[in-house]
Amino acid sequence: MTKGEETRQEIIRSAAPIFNRKGFEGTALSDLMKATGLKKGGIYRHFESKEQLAGEAFDYAWRTAVEIRRLGATEEGHAVDRLKEMVRNFAERREGLVPGGCPLLNTAVDTDSGNRVLRARARKALEDWRGRIRRIATDGIARGEMERKSCDPEKLSAMVVGMLEGSLMISRLEKSNEPMLWACDHLEKHLESLRRGGKRVRAGRRKPR
Amino acid sequence: MTKGEETRQEIIRSAAPIFNRKGFEGTALSDLMKATGLKKGGIYRHFESKEQLAGEAFDYAWRTAVEIRRLGATEEGHAVDRLKEMVRNFAERREGLVPGGCPLLNTAVDTDSGNRVLRARARKALEDWRGRIRRIATDGIARGEMERKSCDPEKLSAMVVGMLEGSLMISRLEKSNEPMLWACDHLEKHLESLRRGGKRVRAGRRKPR
Repeated sequence: MTKGEETRQEIIRSAAPIFNRKGFEGTALSDLMKATGLKKGGIYRHFESKEQLAGEAFDYAWRTAVEIRRLGATEEGHAVDRLKEMVRNFAERREGLVPGGCPLLNTAVDTDSGNRVLRARARKALEDWRGRIRRIATDGIARGEMERKSCDPEKLSAMVVGMLEGSLMISRLEKSNEPMLWACDHLEKHLESLRRGGKRVRAGRRKPR
Repeated sequence: MTKGEETRQEIIRSAAPIFNRKGFEGTALSDLMKATGLKKGGIYRHFESKEQLAGEAFDYAWRTAVEIRRLGATEEGHAVDRLKEMVRNFAERREGLVPGGCPLLNTAVDTDSGNRVLRARARKALEDWRGRIRRIATDGIARGEMERKSCDPEKLSAMVVGMLEGSLMISRLEKSNEPMLWACDHLEKHLESLRRGGKRVRAGRRKPR
């Protein structure tokens, strides 16, 4: 990595928490200068525009979240267990995330009537996430692990993401983990109900790590 | 209402969609001047600060949403039916709302690392909403309409709000009503499962209006 590329990555890492906390419009050049320790010219030598920097900061924040949640996640095993693990990881693995809450939720709300380029990145992130859930469920149905009749992978993926994101909003607003954990419990029970061949005895219980 | 009070209310009504769309930091004085047709002095004769105006604009947007959803809502009847109606109204009664999405979600995300006064108003709105759900469920249990064992009003209220808000975010980002409607279906089925004495035949079906 060249020195210039290193600086560029360092700017993205420093800018990510600012954009995630303050949003695109709310982030001032002075915030970026303070976070990076660079002057305007030092920052914009590496980026065409604030929009470009914000876009890469979003991708960095999202990638970090995806990687942390995937860390140690099972790539094989029963589809229901893998989906439950994904749900639980969202709620519990919050260390190392870019501060300021979920970049997807923040950017979706922030760009609702705003920046189209950033909004497209949020849409892509949502589509990727829903796609992962959809694929696990589709494979699970194909392998006879999940009930074909009661599990619609398309609907399930929207429901899981909607429930997690909305509950995260509540947990952050109320400064309590409980709504997030209740959402996990509900989703885990729902996922168990889709297990083919009936519920397991340990349904809904947390796995020891 | 005095002329001054009328102007004040008119400013709040005009400012509400701007704050709801652009957030507190993202709303510029020039936006407010354009929306109200007033100069800076004309606006701030009626408000101590941008924060005060934003707070009243939030309350107006939230009150509007609550009133629209309550319009024609049943004040009596079976607790499960009332909760299902509340869920359905959230998804379907979107006409007349202050544009820009749910003021609660927007303000919760917008003030996550920002304005404390506005954040307290969002917290109050969330608490009121959860309180309404909690009361209906608690009354329903007391009247023997809902299963005491499987219905925890505290958890249920968080789950309903989380699911609706998160799914609204997805629906807006994907520009499709489907995720919102799937969330309603899921919540309606879940609420039906809490009905004491077993599920109704018409469980989950939309009532004709």
